[in-house]
Amino acid sequence: MKKILLALIAAFASAAGAQENPWRPQAPVASPDVHADGSVTFRYVSPSAKSVRVAGNFLKLSEMNRRADGVWELTTPPLSPELYSYVFIVDSVPVLDPLNGSYSRDIDRLTSSLFIPGNEVEAYDMLDIPHGDVARVWYDSPTLGGRRRMSVYTPAGYTDSTERRYPVLYLLHGMGGDENAWLENGRAAQILDYLIARRKAEPMIVVMPNGNPSMRVAPPDGAFAASHPADSLYRVVNGTFEASVPGLVEYVDSHYRTLPQKESRAIAGLSMGGFHAMMISKEYPDMFDYVGLFSAATEKELGTDSSVSMYTGFDAKLHEQFKQAPELYWIGIGSDDFLYDSNRIYRGKLDREGYRYEYHESTGGHEWRNWRKYLLDFAPKLFR
Amino acid sequence: MKKILLALIAAFASAAGAQENPWRPQAPVASPDVHADGSVTFRYVSPSAKSVRVAGNFLKLSEMNRRADGVWELTTPPLSPELYSYVFIVDSVPVLDPLNGSYSRDIDRLTSSLFIPGNEVEAYDMLDIPHGDVARVWYDSPTLGGRRRMSVYTPAGYTDSTERRYPVLYLLHGMGGDENAWLENGRAAQILDYLIARRKAEPMIVVMPNGNPSMRVAPPDGAFAASHPADSLYRVVNGTFEASVPGLVEYVDSHYRTLPQKESRAIAGLSMGGFHAMMISKEYPDMFDYVGLFSAATEKELGTDSSVSMYTGFDAKLHEQFKQAPELYWIGIGSDDFLYDSNRIYRGKLDREGYRYEYHESTGGHEWRNWRKYLLDFAPKLFR
Repeated sequence: MKKILLALIAAFASAAGAQENPWRPQAPVASPDVHADGSVTFRYVSPSAKSVRVAGNFLKLSEMNRRADGVWELTTPPLSPELYSYVFIVDSVPVLDPLNGSYSRDIDRLTSSLFIPGNEVEAYDMLDIPHGDVARVWYDSPTLGGRRRMSVYTPAGYTDSTERRYPVLYLLHGMGGDENAWLENGRAAQILDYLIARRKAEPMIVVMPNGNPSMRVAPPDGAFAASHPADSLYRVVNGTFEASVPGLVEYVDSHYRTLPQKESRAIAGLSMGGFHAMMISKEYPDMFDYVGLFSAATEKELGTDSSVSMYTGFDAKLHEQFKQAPELYWIGIGSDDFLYDSNRIYRGKLDREGYRYEYHESTGGHEWRNWRKYLLDFAPKLFR
Repeated sequence: MKKILLALIAAFASAAGAQENPWRPQAPVASPDVHADGSVTFRYVSPSAKSVRVAGNFLKLSEMNRRADGVWELTTPPLSPELYSYVFIVDSVPVLDPLNGSYSRDIDRLTSSLFIPGNEVEAYDMLDIPHGDVARVWYDSPTLGGRRRMSVYTPAGYTDSTERRYPVLYLLHGMGGDENAWLENGRAAQILDYLIARRKAEPMIVVMPNGNPSMRVAPPDGAFAASHPADSLYRVVNGTFEASVPGLVEYVDSHYRTLPQKESRAIAGLSMGGFHAMMISKEYPDMFDYVGLFSAATEKELGTDSSVSMYTGFDAKLHEQFKQAPELYWIGIGSDDFLYDSNRIYRGKLDREGYRYEYHESTGGHEWRNWRKYLLDFAPKLFR
């Protein structure tokens, strides 16, 4: 056996080295090194760097200290349990932590991940509990003009039965996201696995479409010519994604064992996806009984000056939606979110009209840290 | 509408900026910039860097030139159509190309991707043709002790029928890979979509398990504590993965509309996965009628000095396998592959025994560039 192992180790080293991948892991130095009290030591091996800093939204931009052996180090104060993102800035160049195999992607931007375990954030980890499957599914959307991909989470046990039917949550990403955003940054599959295994939420299907009309599929799997999405990101709010949702629902109801009725459908989204959820749920008032606006882009002028029919007559459509009030209309936002005022104004409108909603105000800003928590709060309230 | 767009652009910029992601795209400079003749200009924006090089296995490590405005540039000679990987080395630090949204992952190593279109490599692109779905599927493996995840490609049209049954290709990764390797580095879904749409291959299901016994799931989705796989990579060849395959086949046959018989099953793998395919196909001679060894780790001492029953009695088991010779036993390797000699010796053994096989020798080494081409060659020979 020894010879085989040596041959294969050579194969791997070679594949990762000269022939395939010039980015090698460095010396046996650990980073991030999470200590029992929640403090963390970051390390970066570079004898030649002039300056190495840690950049993340959980700590001030901090200079690391160079040890005599060329390893840069920084130890933080104890951090709260959370899933954090960071990069190193080496002589002004931002780089992933080469010693950390865990990272997350937002469209074409990558950051290293840091997980401080504890409390409710254990839901973000891949626990040894039953897991739902996640499929990358292609469907035709006549409204959006062609083939598109979505992600579909089916709860543990789904494939073991041919009878049981499930409610469906449509979960929408923000500007800058795609059909994988809630899975990768949002850890949605892990969160649903956790809530369902702990009997805190009903088993449900979760459908995560791509809400960018011009993007058929997440960039890493997509067409190479279109893998540079920056230009198209600013042409995304034109009503066509919203108008495609009835067709999407029809596809899901005909290809999955759903409970195909309003009381078994929820729609929620973050930022642009919250705007989408607001628009879609009022446009099709018989479709969704549960609505979640997570740090939603709620604009007070909506529906007054637009040539897009999806966005006109907003107040009347909202009135129609609340005539048979949704079972749950949930609004969550962080006190530091730059959309806080916009949400306050929108809540004022709901209050004046006497439309019932549930409001959850958290700390923090416009960030995944909040959106994961909102999903943890929101999903247990559905379908029960 | 203008106000909404501005708010959302602000939301995206903010999410990507101070509050969420410190890694911003830089100025409107393009990289990689592919020209009509197949030459490529790489660009990197850094007024302060002392040296920037391009590292990839398709060109010599090359210094880029600094323009007066702080943009570093390098233009290559014309390159053959291919999907290439590279990184920049900035003052000795390897970094992804921040202007390139396309990258690939090998366990915890990331490289930027460069696609030069043309000829057969169009199969790697996401063309506007019918696409199969890809599911990340959890199954129990008593042999390996618990829940594990695999990837399953089902061809376009699979979900539109409830009757039609399909043959199955089991496609195995190498050391350093996981259940996503063939999808991400191998572009297997795009290749199968292409071959099936062009009627060059039979519609088939492709099952991609994780061949590392100690790894339940690919690191990016996995448990955070286990997201540093380096230690475990060298304990991967112990016979337990191979022994788990009958249970895997049983799962697939009971959860998918397969043709559950030898003549409708193929198994192929690269490097360690080629070793696995060789071991599994001889251990279970009634299971697979098509076998593919792609740059396989074929060791001449196999089965003589091992305490693992999977690896003992190799010659007798191979004899048993070839008594009812597989419909196809396909061996592919590159002339520069460090496993070339090992494969030559293994072919010598097959020749001496008169075992029929098909041999494909390519240029190049132990690299994805070859493995994608081998799949393009191999898949059309299956099930017809």
